[in-house]
Amino acid sequence: MWLRTSCDFLFDITVPIPFVLMLRPRSGAQQWVAREEYRLEPSVPVFEFTDHYGNLCQRLVAPTGAFGVYTSAEVKTADYADQAFGAPFVEIQNVPDDVLSYLLPSRYCESDRFHQMATEITACQQPGYDQVSAIIGWLRNTISFRPGSSDIPVSAAEVNSRQVGVCRDLAHLGIALCRSLSIPARMVVGYLYRLDPMDLHAWFEAYVGGRWYTFDATQAELKGGYVAVGYGRDAADVAVYNQFGPAVYPTAQTVHVERIRG
Amino acid sequence: MWLRTSCDFLFDITVPIPFVLMLRPRSGAQQWVAREEYRLEPSVPVFEFTDHYGNLCQRLVAPTGAFGVYTSAEVKTADYADQAFGAPFVEIQNVPDDVLSYLLPSRYCESDRFHQMATEITACQQPGYDQVSAIIGWLRNTISFRPGSSDIPVSAAEVNSRQVGVCRDLAHLGIALCRSLSIPARMVVGYLYRLDPMDLHAWFEAYVGGRWYTFDATQAELKGGYVAVGYGRDAADVAVYNQFGPAVYPTAQTVHVERIRG
Amino acid sequence: MWLRTSCDFLFDITVPIPFVLMLRPRSGAQQWVAREEYRLEPSVPVFEFTDHYGNLCQRLVAPTGAFGVYTSAEVKTADYADQAFGAPFVEIQNVPDDVLSYLLPSRYCESDRFHQMATEITACQQPGYDQVSAIIGWLRNTISFRPGSSDIPVSAAEVNSRQVGVCRDLAHLGIALCRSLSIPARMVVGYLYRLDPMDLHAWFEAYVGGRWYTFDATQAELKGGYVAVGYGRDAADVAVYNQFGPAVYPTAQTVHVERIRG
Amino acid sequence: MWLRTSCDFLFDITVPIPFVLMLRPRSGAQQWVAREEYRLEPSVPVFEFTDHYGNLCQRLVAPTGAFGVYTSAEVKTADYADQAFGAPFVEIQNVPDDVLSYLLPSRYCESDRFHQMATEITACQQPGYDQVSAIIGWLRNTISFRPGSSDIPVSAAEVNSRQVGVCRDLAHLGIALCRSLSIPARMVVGYLYRLDPMDLHAWFEAYVGGRWYTFDATQAELKGGYVAVGYGRDAADVAVYNQFGPAVYPTAQTVHVERIRG
Repeated sequence: MWLRTSCDFLFDITVPIPFVLMLRPRSGAQQWVAREEYRLEPSVPVFEFTDHYGNLCQRLVAPTGAFGVYTSAEVKTADYADQAFGAPFVEIQNVPDDVLSYLLPSRYCESDRFHQMATEITACQQPGYDQVSAIIGWLRNTISFRPGSSDIPVSAAEVNSRQVGVCRDLAHLGIALCRSLSIPARMVVGYLYRLDPMDLHAWFEAYVGGRWYTFDATQAELKGGYVAVGYGRDAADVAVYNQFGPAVYPTAQTVHVERIRG
Repeated sequence: MWLRTSCDFLFDITVPIPFVLMLRPRSGAQQWVAREEYRLEPSVPVFEFTDHYGNLCQRLVAPTGAFGVYTSAEVKTADYADQAFGAPFVEIQNVPDDVLSYLLPSRYCESDRFHQMATEITACQQPGYDQVSAIIGWLRNTISFRPGSSDIPVSAAEVNSRQVGVCRDLAHLGIALCRSLSIPARMVVGYLYRLDPMDLHAWFEAYVGGRWYTFDATQAELKGGYVAVGYGRDAADVAVYNQFGPAVYPTAQTVHVERIRG
Repeated sequence: MWLRTSCDFLFDITVPIPFVLMLRPRSGAQQWVAREEYRLEPSVPVFEFTDHYGNLCQRLVAPTGAFGVYTSAEVKTADYADQAFGAPFVEIQNVPDDVLSYLLPSRYCESDRFHQMATEITACQQPGYDQVSAIIGWLRNTISFRPGSSDIPVSAAEVNSRQVGVCRDLAHLGIALCRSLSIPARMVVGYLYRLDPMDLHAWFEAYVGGRWYTFDATQAELKGGYVAVGYGRDAADVAVYNQFGPAVYPTAQTVHVERIRG
Repeated sequence: MWLRTSCDFLFDITVPIPFVLMLRPRSGAQQWVAREEYRLEPSVPVFEFTDHYGNLCQRLVAPTGAFGVYTSAEVKTADYADQAFGAPFVEIQNVPDDVLSYLLPSRYCESDRFHQMATEITACQQPGYDQVSAIIGWLRNTISFRPGSSDIPVSAAEVNSRQVGVCRDLAHLGIALCRSLSIPARMVVGYLYRLDPMDLHAWFEAYVGGRWYTFDATQAELKGGYVAVGYGRDAADVAVYNQFGPAVYPTAQTVHVERIRG
């Protein structure tokens, strides 16, 4: 399907502040960006670079006063995210070099502490896709998905203790459980068609059967309409904006996703 | 200045043919892409990747029949390209690691054969920017810039023998001369505002005084309005399209560059 | 000074286990590896790759039975690690692209939780080297360095609560404090001449004044004799061995560092 | 088999000269470096980096006077290089992203000029390994392998015209022919056990059947005992030393390869 996504931020800046933004979706194996817009008001010098994970990042210094970031894109993405029950666990020796780092614990995914729990959750499952699927089922049953329930990222261990979280939190716990079983898993931030309430979204991918598959514990059933903006080990890598110095929060943030003809 | 660029290709494909296209400008230190469009008709699956030089490349298989590629962008670029007479030669030991490869000879820049000639052209010049400037002056005086005079890339040695060439040819010879003096030089393909006749353009950059500077022997004087689409060692690296299998040429190609308000 | 380093591991493997090892020091700006040996007994197929951080990693499947890894190197390293009191804080907009990721929180360095504390520790210090130096002083005074006091990595927050730790723990807390002040900091694992008791060592580097500087809260005074084997965001990235599947610990581990003539 | 390789250069330097050396073999899929030595006399600061192709490169400034570079390695390599008659041509759309650049013409491999000739040489062959094998057969029959017959690199077109060449020349022509048929091909520089006369060696690899295979037109039959030191598009990328400024040639060069127990 073809989607038009947009994400706008408005900041009220009191002292010039360096930002690193990650708001430009990339065309890749899963999606094609046919049109894209990225506007700053006022216009300031921007330097774009590609990070370790292949994300396009925009560096700038936000000037004092009202500062707006307006982005939109027209993207072709799959009508239905691929599913592959039975897809096997990839033996570590066959995991590609550049996927290996997604096996390591990271800031918000303390996978080194979840092995026992993951083993119980996935008992009786075939190693691979079915294990991840069992983790998704467990997350849906156990952790309440409550948009707005946390505003700063919390870690998988904290989420597990709270038993409630936002999309990012469920993804962190899902990732930690996968990695604790030696299944590579990574965070994705982006858009989801018909997400309710509409907002930026976070989900995760797991590497089984020789490729990455999409998983999302916040949805009752896995449909399509995902548009990825950033990939990383966890939320620390894929903040749509990182600002340095005194904390600054958007005074307004708007996200839209609508279906269009291609 | 803000520019709207567009480049469209129309092909008549008789058998499905794999293409690698390089038609998506990237935001970087020199330019900011605020809006961009990339449309294929008919729409086919596209896989985009980043090459060694940081260029975004689009892989696809063109289907039989009429196949159109329509790209446009709105880009902020400098009103005047920086110039820096007197900027010094960078001693090899101080050239950054990732710039070193631009010292090597490449397909169309046989820099290993031009040392004597480059030394003569730049006699009495301060090492660095002024040498490159002397090379530009020599190219303007010696090689006739004649758009349309060659359709396949020819090498610096061939250009030097013909004494006539298209923009790409002058760039190749300029690059070969620079590298033969141990000045890193790279090819750029993109757009130039007010180029006459309008077309895709090629120029080169040389690394002196600690950064890359723009050089263009096809213009009587260096202005601004450059929009880069691809960087590489020479034309072999920055073909806007590479197709594999039986040769295919566009039945139509249109390039536009106009000035807009940002 | 020239050092001969060696690190040997002996494992008793009960079922074939995939390993990723990081035991090959690389020559770089800080050190020159003139001789190096890497022996496995029994010999098994090994695939080596370079990770995101430039570390050489060795992948293999350890066979059942006794499995030995024997590595040694002869390395030239600085007699005295550079110090630069007064070296200024690097404004975020001037931090090189590939250094930016060392500002983010990571598994064992929850820098997003330490800003207040770091501000107090570094009160009255000039931004930059002197802040890091104050952090080192605070670590020496506050956290007891006790080799052997932890066997699995614990995070900066945990270390801060325990007030005692191994070299890795002090490095984690130091890194978290630096990053919370927007000073890039990274973990280093390797060898230190005259470390007592001799073992593999961990310290950290902070990016101030336009380059990386060595910091080590475990030593009363900063000398030289450091040999780096791996760089990363924290211990999760620079494990000298990662093994997957059932936990396996070395039955013997030997580390030597001696001074030699070059 | 286990091999001990060594390569020593002695230079007589009259003015300090920057060098980029490529003399450190890397462990990889095809070989394991168990021991390695790299000595410079006199000892000078060296900075090592990894180039685009994964090669380890050593940067230094050679001081005036006698300057010696002494390298040796103990490497495990295959007893027999893999052969795979019938391995199919890889359709362009299935060539991995990072292999694509080996389809492009390069300084010494003008593949854009060899399509007709390559088609004739490989007439009646199955696309893929068998085509490359036919190219090897043609090279053996047509181009005389004469060590010492050229001292500077010449291009495939020049080799084809001379009908005689050193190992590097035969590799260049083989690579150009492969690429002209859309088969990725790359240059390898390194050692070959029992090469006669012993020297550094050059051969090439072609990407068919989903992986790289070794080809060497200088040998009557393909055995094993290859140790790779550098990979690249052609000789311009894999010079074992590049020096900048006035030309400098070794006053002595010694290469040894002997078989050892592992």
